[in-house]
Amino acid sequence: MRYDEMSKEALQEELSALKKQYHKMQTMDLHLDMSRGKPCIDQLDLSMGLMDVLDSSSDLTCDDGTDCRNYGQLTGIDEARELIGDMMENNPNDIIIYGNSSLNVMYDTVSRAYTHGIMGNTPWCKLDKVKFLCPVPGYDRHFAITEYFGIEMIPVPMNDHGPEMAIVEKLVAEDESIKGIWCVPKYSNPSGISYSDETVRRFARLKPAARDFRIFWDNAYGMHHLYDDRQDYLIEILAECKRAGNPDLVYKFASTSKITFPGSGIAALATSPNNMEDIKKQLRNQTIGHDKVNQLRHVRFFQDIHGMVEHMRKHADILRPKFEMVENTLAEELGDKGVGSWTTPLGGYFIGFESLPGCAKKIVARCKKAGVVMTPAGATWPYGKDPQDTSIRIAPTFPPLDDLREAAQLFCLCVKIVSVEKILADREA
Amino acid sequence: MRYDEMSKEALQEELSALKKQYHKMQTMDLHLDMSRGKPCIDQLDLSMGLMDVLDSSSDLTCDDGTDCRNYGQLTGIDEARELIGDMMENNPNDIIIYGNSSLNVMYDTVSRAYTHGIMGNTPWCKLDKVKFLCPVPGYDRHFAITEYFGIEMIPVPMNDHGPEMAIVEKLVAEDESIKGIWCVPKYSNPSGISYSDETVRRFARLKPAARDFRIFWDNAYGMHHLYDDRQDYLIEILAECKRAGNPDLVYKFASTSKITFPGSGIAALATSPNNMEDIKKQLRNQTIGHDKVNQLRHVRFFQDIHGMVEHMRKHADILRPKFEMVENTLAEELGDKGVGSWTTPLGGYFIGFESLPGCAKKIVARCKKAGVVMTPAGATWPYGKDPQDTSIRIAPTFPPLDDLREAAQLFCLCVKIVSVEKILADREA
Repeated sequence: MRYDEMSKEALQEELSALKKQYHKMQTMDLHLDMSRGKPCIDQLDLSMGLMDVLDSSSDLTCDDGTDCRNYGQLTGIDEARELIGDMMENNPNDIIIYGNSSLNVMYDTVSRAYTHGIMGNTPWCKLDKVKFLCPVPGYDRHFAITEYFGIEMIPVPMNDHGPEMAIVEKLVAEDESIKGIWCVPKYSNPSGISYSDETVRRFARLKPAARDFRIFWDNAYGMHHLYDDRQDYLIEILAECKRAGNPDLVYKFASTSKITFPGSGIAALATSPNNMEDIKKQLRNQTIGHDKVNQLRHVRFFQDIHGMVEHMRKHADILRPKFEMVENTLAEELGDKGVGSWTTPLGGYFIGFESLPGCAKKIVARCKKAGVVMTPAGATWPYGKDPQDTSIRIAPTFPPLDDLREAAQLFCLCVKIVSVEKILADREA
Repeated sequence: MRYDEMSKEALQEELSALKKQYHKMQTMDLHLDMSRGKPCIDQLDLSMGLMDVLDSSSDLTCDDGTDCRNYGQLTGIDEARELIGDMMENNPNDIIIYGNSSLNVMYDTVSRAYTHGIMGNTPWCKLDKVKFLCPVPGYDRHFAITEYFGIEMIPVPMNDHGPEMAIVEKLVAEDESIKGIWCVPKYSNPSGISYSDETVRRFARLKPAARDFRIFWDNAYGMHHLYDDRQDYLIEILAECKRAGNPDLVYKFASTSKITFPGSGIAALATSPNNMEDIKKQLRNQTIGHDKVNQLRHVRFFQDIHGMVEHMRKHADILRPKFEMVENTLAEELGDKGVGSWTTPLGGYFIGFESLPGCAKKIVARCKKAGVVMTPAGATWPYGKDPQDTSIRIAPTFPPLDDLREAAQLFCLCVKIVSVEKILADREA
């Protein structure tokens, strides 16, 4: 029965029962973390073979004769560009292999635009105003980068097919100070939805007022399906932009952080030849080259894209039960209560939860007081300010399944308590 | 006999004989590279054990419980900060472990000052003028960074004890737009000299007009001695600055690029707690953390600083004969000719050569035409402009000893030819 259809007395009784359950759970001394998109130990164990593919008897020479142990190869070794090209669905020549972190690549990309401008345009630091569109809910670390550079962030609502494209199209066409948009197009952070074909097509056909407008396309979860038989497919954005006559519109990012080891994987950027030349002018001042031995290690470990796909199936086998358990718990506990909605993504690292207005912060605080850490409410919005206070990101990957069950139970309990309190308070008012 | 004491006829005869030798060497079809400070294959082989210290049965957990395979540890794992602390002679708490390239750390340090300023001071991008002092001859990649950011570079002459400190002191005290100075204080690039105690003491006592003036102290060759019994010692700059009451004056950089593998080592920055806090504010927007597995790999490989010292002795055993051979060749071929001077460093990667005025470019060009690539003449000066055209960097590390012998012979031959031509032309004029 929906809570908002219950009488005051019934709600008060329910609240009292819920609080008893809550206090009981508090005594369990939980210490669980559902705050970040971290792989769990079982997932990390999948990649321990990475440590075996190279040893002191290995030849660390590339096919083209490059000694991976020495300096050089600014854009990465050919073998890695080939593998990551297959992973990103891009031409290896359009790919730069970086260090261990795609976040770092995104930061550097914004920083370079800020200090030197994009393809001959005015550096952003010389402009009075620079703005970014931020589909919400979105990824807090994206927003942290643009906030750090003093870039004004304009929220754009997400729907089930991606950002509201009519709004995106209008804003970028009208306002020359809008220089970028943050996108997680597949198994989006945090909602888990993927952009529809229509959305991608419209992105490729944007007519921005700013010549240095770029789509920051963070395809972090391109390979991260939960199911073999049900998978989201995304139109490849660089190819679509090229077809649409907008070849330079996109910077596309990816990494193996959630494929092998976070922090010890390889990150990459794919973009048009023009953007590539522009980036290389800067990059050769920044470094002589990234870690080629680790690039080779990844290539030898996976052999090819099929090897990576098979590897990702093992990740899915670990993550699928976690997602399903959380989704089932949400359905069982909250399905008929009318106190929130959530997504059931086919991949990625997150489940998006939308509470009743004004409840997200209180739910997260209540979870914390009973030992379950969630991503701070508001984090999915620019400046940490979720105007309706509804968006909560659930990150089910890291805790072991049994812990996760308790965490999910506690989360639902907190949603119920805060929602009942809210409904009661609304009736008082 | 000195060339400048020889008659015109004798010089012409000598020139004709030298050119015959040169043409003979041209027929040898040499393809040798003395242009960059690259370790040779034998040196790289010394570190192949790095590939063995971790395998799939290894526990990749730190003493404090950090799983090196997962996200986190912005400033590096404790074990690596300890080891690199010993390497840099700094408190582990004052150290940030970065990715694979100290050049990248230096670039990012300049970039951060440019975009956000240092410790609350105006970002350099908002200033009309920013200048750096550049001791010359110096390192071309340093100069490339400051040039890329539009920072005006002011050359300061080097002597046998470091930069001319009277000039440095005067300039930084007078001009608030001078924000930094590039230093390679030990086994300097390219001259190989080390800063004297007096020089370091005076650096630590600088009274810059700019509150955001910083010494960029690139201690790239701190461990890179050629001899066991004769080594340069450098006063540790952070400690000296602290003693002098200027704790925040220095950013100090180092890496294992020329200890293990260039491109696959670990880089680090050491600085005061105030600077550290300032940097971390930015760093946490740029990355979640650097490659901890590679940090652990280095720690397990060396065990401790003694292990690293022993390892460096093996490098020295490979490099010493190369340096000595080049120095002996220079002495034999040029010692009595009065056509140049050179350094005989106790460590590092380079020998500095000073030709007669107006000869460096021609010498390097002549070497190239016979198959020996040197660092471009002028590269050791800001903007690639060596006003006297005298400075040549000799990088003897990469070629095998036999090749190096030929390269050194050819170099001396080119010095002689160009110098004789110059002396003859001067007499004509």
